[in-house]
Amino acid sequence: MKWHDVLQSLVEKNDHKIVLLVADGLGGLPRSPGEKTELESAQTPHMDRLAREGTLGMSIPVKPGITPGSGPGHLGLFGYDPLEFVIGRGALEATGIGFHLEENDVAARGNFCTLDAQGNITDRRAGRIPTPECQRLVEKLRTIRLPEVELFVEPVREHRFVLVLRGSGLGDAVNDTDPQATGVPPLEAQGTDPPSRRTAELVNQFVAQARRLLAEEPRANGLTLRGFSARPQLPSYEELYGLRAAALAVYPMYRGLARLVGMELVGQPQTLEEQLELLRENWDRFDFFFIHYKYTDSTGEDGNFEAKVQKIQELDAAVPQIVELGPSVLVITGDHSTPSKLRSHSWHPVPVLLWADSCRTDACTSFGESEAVRGGLGQFEAQYLMPLALAHAGRLGKYGA
Amino acid sequence: MKWHDVLQSLVEKNDHKIVLLVADGLGGLPRSPGEKTELESAQTPHMDRLAREGTLGMSIPVKPGITPGSGPGHLGLFGYDPLEFVIGRGALEATGIGFHLEENDVAARGNFCTLDAQGNITDRRAGRIPTPECQRLVEKLRTIRLPEVELFVEPVREHRFVLVLRGSGLGDAVNDTDPQATGVPPLEAQGTDPPSRRTAELVNQFVAQARRLLAEEPRANGLTLRGFSARPQLPSYEELYGLRAAALAVYPMYRGLARLVGMELVGQPQTLEEQLELLRENWDRFDFFFIHYKYTDSTGEDGNFEAKVQKIQELDAAVPQIVELGPSVLVITGDHSTPSKLRSHSWHPVPVLLWADSCRTDACTSFGESEAVRGGLGQFEAQYLMPLALAHAGRLGKYGA
Repeated sequence: MKWHDVLQSLVEKNDHKIVLLVADGLGGLPRSPGEKTELESAQTPHMDRLAREGTLGMSIPVKPGITPGSGPGHLGLFGYDPLEFVIGRGALEATGIGFHLEENDVAARGNFCTLDAQGNITDRRAGRIPTPECQRLVEKLRTIRLPEVELFVEPVREHRFVLVLRGSGLGDAVNDTDPQATGVPPLEAQGTDPPSRRTAELVNQFVAQARRLLAEEPRANGLTLRGFSARPQLPSYEELYGLRAAALAVYPMYRGLARLVGMELVGQPQTLEEQLELLRENWDRFDFFFIHYKYTDSTGEDGNFEAKVQKIQELDAAVPQIVELGPSVLVITGDHSTPSKLRSHSWHPVPVLLWADSCRTDACTSFGESEAVRGGLGQFEAQYLMPLALAHAGRLGKYGA
Repeated sequence: MKWHDVLQSLVEKNDHKIVLLVADGLGGLPRSPGEKTELESAQTPHMDRLAREGTLGMSIPVKPGITPGSGPGHLGLFGYDPLEFVIGRGALEATGIGFHLEENDVAARGNFCTLDAQGNITDRRAGRIPTPECQRLVEKLRTIRLPEVELFVEPVREHRFVLVLRGSGLGDAVNDTDPQATGVPPLEAQGTDPPSRRTAELVNQFVAQARRLLAEEPRANGLTLRGFSARPQLPSYEELYGLRAAALAVYPMYRGLARLVGMELVGQPQTLEEQLELLRENWDRFDFFFIHYKYTDSTGEDGNFEAKVQKIQELDAAVPQIVELGPSVLVITGDHSTPSKLRSHSWHPVPVLLWADSCRTDACTSFGESEAVRGGLGQFEAQYLMPLALAHAGRLGKYGA
């Protein structure tokens, strides 16, 4: 039997609530061998208490050695094998700016570029034009009309934008038009099946019209497109787990990812306090709450060890407000590691704290990487975190008699 | 290469013996966080000695979070991926009462039910008639004859029975006739392929004749059938591992499961002493011995922490009798956890003790969950226990040159 079918067949409903608190990029590294990581350096009395009562472990976001982006990182945490369920680059880019992809959409990531008189690319990023200039150019592109499809052009940042085609019978098996080189022209779009060939023709029309509209621009007089992709087919939280799920997230990317798996976006929180306020207000309406905390990742990407420590401590201070609501299961983890030492996402396993009445206590006395390595959950792929949470919430029946 | 093909291709034979001692539902939970589990509370000097000399680990019966029934739990221990090899409900029910399914059999679980004058179900369990009444009704059903197939009707308990059709060209892609509701009649059986359609027709004839035979019964005047299933296709221990395997089990379910993988049922032991006596008597005849000990599970299901501790101690006292026979490999584990705190099977990993001359000693000094978490075998899926046992018995050759 296929894993998700098995899981779905075992789901039972009750009124037990699950909270998944994701501290983005939580896992870290010591500055020097033998020292403490950011999480270990932080004073986290509340999480340490939960660590003593609950069970720790290490989550491997995709496979050992694989550094995930935000998309695969969260898909894993949400219980979807990130090697099986792939969000195309265009779809992820659209998701990341809060664009709500519909069933029939095909999205692509666009780059403005500089072309010479022969139409060859001289700068693949158009000199990284400032974002306001990108917005001005996108307004021009929005005047383009194509037969039988609706077009959306959305600015992102600097030279980047998103193109979405909406209409029936489109396909996403279309090549990137970015040749990944200068001195050559952008490539023609071509499709490998009939719907994708039709999409490619529309894309080429779009590009031709755009070239005319941008002809007088000094830097951004051309564009390339890549990562053509339809909305990913993900079974929803309701279908898969029987959970009414709420997302309490500040940033568009995580709101978008949550919406892709059918979570309801609750409010427009701007701070952790507002997230917790929304959690309290909506406690009775949902079975599952995804709370996303960005700052452990951004401080890690800044390479700021002390700031990451500080952001972990601020998160710890908020934990009692979650506990006092009485969740049956509280999971605190990250979607990947972002060690400030590396200033980037990394492949290192991510510490997991699972707190529930049915926990088998392990020897861990605080929440940190060294402790989690010897925790009772062992090392496991992130995609199994949701089944574990469901089991501890009494929401999974027996497999086989 | 497929995993089982790889395994099979590596098997070598020798005279080293393997004993798999399964304490059903062995894994437990502390009564309160931080306390000891049943296994940790028990005085187990013999297993503790083996733990010091051998290697411990944690077995995940199916996947993280999945609570297995006895069928999948044992299939995993026997080395069969329980998501790939599925024992249908009817087949498992037949197995559980010691009915030996043959190649061409299709089995179903039956329920007597109560029908009103219109033929609608008023009680799906016929008022849970006592078992002797079930036996009496089964005798009636045994008079039914159908063309070209042999019929077996076996009482189980209360309103439950097993129906087996034996004959060539039968299929098990037949729907449940239990509508899972009252106020409606049982469903017609229908098949989704030609052999299953033929089976469904025979089933409908059986039901029609049964209705006439049961017409005057006050409560059990109808029946429903579900979980139609053929004998699962499991490669035998002999085929897969080159092992002459013996099962020393008291209860029909475990005897049946062992027989499904080609183990020989040795004797009809009623106690652990009789199992050990049979072990000694048959030591030279087999390469592999599966010893099943039920009482760690039943005391767990009773929610009786102290009784489970006691049953573990009784098992420990028997361990020297196994050791003195000189097995090359002795494995002590469970098919799943049955924490008395939960009064049921659970998803928690199961402690494993593997004792052999080729063990890499780990730091574990006693047999218990907290120790096993930091054991040398780590956490692994139960299906890999048999390869580990074979390897330690010198029965697996090198993969690749």
